[in-house]
Amino acid sequence: MVALILLRHGESLWNRENRFTGWTDVDLSPRGIEEAHRAAQLLSDGGFTFRVAYTSVLKRAIRTLWIVMDDLDLMYVPVHRSWRLNEKSYGALQGLNKQETAAKYGAEQVHLWRRAYDVRPPPLSRDDPGHPRFDPRYADLDPESLPATESLHDTLERVLPYWESHITADLRQGKPVLVSAHGNSLRALVKHLDGVPDDEIAGLNIPTGYPLVYELDGDLKAVKHYYLGDPEEVAAAARGVARQAGVK
Amino acid sequence: MVALILLRHGESLWNRENRFTGWTDVDLSPRGIEEAHRAAQLLSDGGFTFRVAYTSVLKRAIRTLWIVMDDLDLMYVPVHRSWRLNEKSYGALQGLNKQETAAKYGAEQVHLWRRAYDVRPPPLSRDDPGHPRFDPRYADLDPESLPATESLHDTLERVLPYWESHITADLRQGKPVLVSAHGNSLRALVKHLDGVPDDEIAGLNIPTGYPLVYELDGDLKAVKHYYLGDPEEVAAAARGVARQAGVK
Repeated sequence: MVALILLRHGESLWNRENRFTGWTDVDLSPRGIEEAHRAAQLLSDGGFTFRVAYTSVLKRAIRTLWIVMDDLDLMYVPVHRSWRLNEKSYGALQGLNKQETAAKYGAEQVHLWRRAYDVRPPPLSRDDPGHPRFDPRYADLDPESLPATESLHDTLERVLPYWESHITADLRQGKPVLVSAHGNSLRALVKHLDGVPDDEIAGLNIPTGYPLVYELDGDLKAVKHYYLGDPEEVAAAARGVARQAGVK
Repeated sequence: MVALILLRHGESLWNRENRFTGWTDVDLSPRGIEEAHRAAQLLSDGGFTFRVAYTSVLKRAIRTLWIVMDDLDLMYVPVHRSWRLNEKSYGALQGLNKQETAAKYGAEQVHLWRRAYDVRPPPLSRDDPGHPRFDPRYADLDPESLPATESLHDTLERVLPYWESHITADLRQGKPVLVSAHGNSLRALVKHLDGVPDDEIAGLNIPTGYPLVYELDGDLKAVKHYYLGDPEEVAAAARGVARQAGVK
């Protein structure tokens, strides 16, 4: 049995402002920093460790990881960053307020953009300065492979090859792995691990800052999974995520 | 032309207490943290960046790197950690005060242990709890390959294979590289880059927290090198390093 620990980064400055973030490189808020420390404490209390870590190329996930590594005295653990673990691209919605967007387009449309498996938000234009092809962190990638928007399906299709080619190799060697990433790149992994049907994934919300532990067998099948932390707090946090685009 | 930036971590808690550190995983002091921020500022002022970073598995080098990455908004840059970039092992001297050790064994002997190319400090015993074979960060390595003490020559012989197999590959691709490491692992690299003879290396002291930039040609020959920062401050800092084991 080997442990895979999934950790959604804590609140970012744009989470706090309830704006769509996607590939925008927004930092953690002070509360997000606290959530990362709490995640480290939960791991420590549960006796969990990890021998390799994976994260995205976005600082809110990287900082969350750094805090956990520091608090657990694991700064020496190898870290692999990949754009494939980035948040879903929200395209032209990035930077917009979720409630204002819901007021304009309707809560149902926003829910589809946020959570439906095969719906893409409106794309960034190719010449938008926020298009990833202008960002030096993607300079080694083919610009044509960089998304201007993504559905969760698109996200899953770029997460899974990385899971298969990199993360599973460490797990098969019996190394516990921590993945510090984002709501939708982690939903893609959970969909895969638990075989969640396409039409049920919209209902799955992953709370920030609570480690989600998968115990995997030798074939990397999920034997069980559970959140660390008080179950009522975890459930309340997941409901909070689901409510973000509600129109008051 | 491609830039290789060498950065010796700032003051650690044991530097402050003037104790031999070696492979002991001691954190930065508050002053060491300031030095890391200064290094980032010097890089920023000079218009330097890097596309890949290398460091040891010791937190004083890793934290120095983290601070630089954070300050330069480069948290996304790939980082490779290796024990091969660790400080020289000071063996059984680790934890001892440098001045007390000099009072006991003589300043000349301590200078040889610290700086002579082929002199090893007394080794850690195999059963010493501080022996690296008991440290989980080296669990993937052959315990017999882990040093109980090292001369600078020994350090160079484990640094250079990593330089050749990993760091040069990035430089040959034209990627500027930052190496955040230690007094002696960096002296080993400098000895190699500048062809410093064995009997002259004892006189080379690298100050903490001042980036040392090498401009390398297509064959990775050093065309020029220079410290960033005020030349008088850099020289004074290097003299301070040389004086640490002086008996008052």
